[in-house]
Amino acid sequence: MRMMEPLAENVHIAADGSAIEIVNQTKLPGEYVLKRVRTAEEMYDAIQRLEVRGAPAIGIFAAYCMYALAEQMTADNHGHFPHAAGSDEIQAFLDALGKKAAFLRSSRPTAVNLAWALDRMMRTAREKANQITAARAAGAAGNPLVDEPAPAQIAEALGDEAILIQKEDIEMCRKISEHGLSLLKDGDGVLTHCNAGPLATSRYGTAIGPILLAQEKGIHIRAFADETRPLLQGARLTAYELQQAGVDVTLICDNMASIVMKNGWINACFVGCDRVAANGDAANKIGTSGVAILAKHYGIPFYVLGPSSTIDLSCETGADIPIELRDGEEIRSMHYEKPMAPEGVKCFNPAFDVTDHELIAGIITEKGIVRPPFKENLAALFG
Amino acid sequence: MRMMEPLAENVHIAADGSAIEIVNQTKLPGEYVLKRVRTAEEMYDAIQRLEVRGAPAIGIFAAYCMYALAEQMTADNHGHFPHAAGSDEIQAFLDALGKKAAFLRSSRPTAVNLAWALDRMMRTAREKANQITAARAAGAAGNPLVDEPAPAQIAEALGDEAILIQKEDIEMCRKISEHGLSLLKDGDGVLTHCNAGPLATSRYGTAIGPILLAQEKGIHIRAFADETRPLLQGARLTAYELQQAGVDVTLICDNMASIVMKNGWINACFVGCDRVAANGDAANKIGTSGVAILAKHYGIPFYVLGPSSTIDLSCETGADIPIELRDGEEIRSMHYEKPMAPEGVKCFNPAFDVTDHELIAGIITEKGIVRPPFKENLAALFG
Repeated sequence: MRMMEPLAENVHIAADGSAIEIVNQTKLPGEYVLKRVRTAEEMYDAIQRLEVRGAPAIGIFAAYCMYALAEQMTADNHGHFPHAAGSDEIQAFLDALGKKAAFLRSSRPTAVNLAWALDRMMRTAREKANQITAARAAGAAGNPLVDEPAPAQIAEALGDEAILIQKEDIEMCRKISEHGLSLLKDGDGVLTHCNAGPLATSRYGTAIGPILLAQEKGIHIRAFADETRPLLQGARLTAYELQQAGVDVTLICDNMASIVMKNGWINACFVGCDRVAANGDAANKIGTSGVAILAKHYGIPFYVLGPSSTIDLSCETGADIPIELRDGEEIRSMHYEKPMAPEGVKCFNPAFDVTDHELIAGIITEKGIVRPPFKENLAALFG
Repeated sequence: MRMMEPLAENVHIAADGSAIEIVNQTKLPGEYVLKRVRTAEEMYDAIQRLEVRGAPAIGIFAAYCMYALAEQMTADNHGHFPHAAGSDEIQAFLDALGKKAAFLRSSRPTAVNLAWALDRMMRTAREKANQITAARAAGAAGNPLVDEPAPAQIAEALGDEAILIQKEDIEMCRKISEHGLSLLKDGDGVLTHCNAGPLATSRYGTAIGPILLAQEKGIHIRAFADETRPLLQGARLTAYELQQAGVDVTLICDNMASIVMKNGWINACFVGCDRVAANGDAANKIGTSGVAILAKHYGIPFYVLGPSSTIDLSCETGADIPIELRDGEEIRSMHYEKPMAPEGVKCFNPAFDVTDHELIAGIITEKGIVRPPFKENLAALFG
């Protein structure tokens, strides 16, 4: 067990390595609450209740959870794992870790990044176990792989891997932010939709990364945040993150994007993405396609920013991307004191929409800025 | 004092003529409350608190208020108005009415229709007074103008005028609705923004009039109502009115207009207007211009509907129309249980925007449908 430096504020491991602290995103922006989760059940609840949200953030959180659970399982036994007499300690430890991973995975079955991070952590555990087993078969004494308790070594490897996952995310976000910032100049206005900032990732974020990086460098960007109905991620999270960072941010209702563009206040639109098809069609939070159409009308470049893992060349066009339909109650009554709409009125509540590639000026990943024609240029970079 | 037929549900006079009943719009859609207002103070409050809203509805309400107040002022004196000995009864009554009108006018100083209706009612009172004075000077006995108490006659004339104002509004809305309906066919989908229905007028309304008229005629229209942030007039009022009328209505967040258009569900957009400039630029609720741009992108005709009184040929283009900026708190916290945005975050909250005339397929008033080129065609009809 060792001291671990908090790499990013929204997800970090407690000093003794046995608990995770997260910024409880469901309390923002009213309250800034650091929540400490220790047991697997608490970890499950934190994901399930969206206290931690955003694909990269969930992945990082799950990775730290696996490390903390591994530490807990060995802490009371001097680095060993209690197992039945005659059974293999390493295999018993891997089995126990696998059960925890399966349990955490079931907290949000559709979260691709959750499964990805848990799989990567289990692979790390097995690789370390294999190294230990091989070293012990060779019998070379004086080798820590042979001398140290195997469960403690595996837990340490999991800690290293969790840090690596977070560092990779920070690096990815930083590169995306740098590419995005290369498109801006001092005094520019940038409109963003939904939330693709540090709370959803590690540091910087994707779509608002260039704005935060500009702020660090003393470049003044005027940010405009769409509130993003129905769940208000723009109002609750993006406006919060930008305000905290000292950025000149103005919150608007989604239907005000047209007038701020018409007023000449917007030089570029930066949005995140959930999935990008081979032809450049990009799925993102509902309302993104409307922003892109307005931007085209007013002659403003519209950019999509995200990690290269969102480029899905197996998906030919946006028509192949399924759109989640959510409960109409989110529109009718969520968050409100009194009914916002007649009881039982029919609602259409898609969570995402697809922005046609013709509306997109560029797709920005950590590998750089891809320009049209997207089909050819995405295939060249990611094929 | 006589029985008066309720001409429209949202504003009508009580059976004994001495009080007004309104649908309290601030309670919708949670509660349907008929509110009875009797005193001038209660009338003032109803306007000031937006319990009655919508320019035509405010005008109709104010007209009925003047009638009810006139009835009250004569009811206890057999049709006479108590006045100082030696003073002129008619002039004393007109002075008292004038004071009530000035008081009601001060409830919402910027409401053009309120002042217009009060001026018209006072003109009616003076005209009736002049008729009575002339008839009495001529001294023809057996003439009701001579024999009946003058205040009672003036009150009756005010009742007739109030009914006329409401009938004119119903007729205006009906004609607009018929012109609008001529553009639709059975099975069409219509998207509307904000509220321009019967609650804001008398019957039918303007932008949603064609949909309600279609429903009466058994023509099936699928209506889509933008919720219209920040004040949610679409969710609270339009969805309510259409649901009550049995129309197939679907409520969406403003940012979902793009996807419903892309899905092929919308055949026309119908919106109201606050002011139309000589070149056809139309000011309406914030977000209207965005809907028009999306409609153009998807090849859907976009129509503006309103009474001819909104055509302002003295206003050259939309750039001459001032846009009211409202309190950011409407975006940050209104209606919500918990903060929707960080405390003190800067907001931009324009109440209206201007839709460029190139985006408009037609402007529909009670006089018919005006097509581009608007400058020439509006001048020909309204110049």
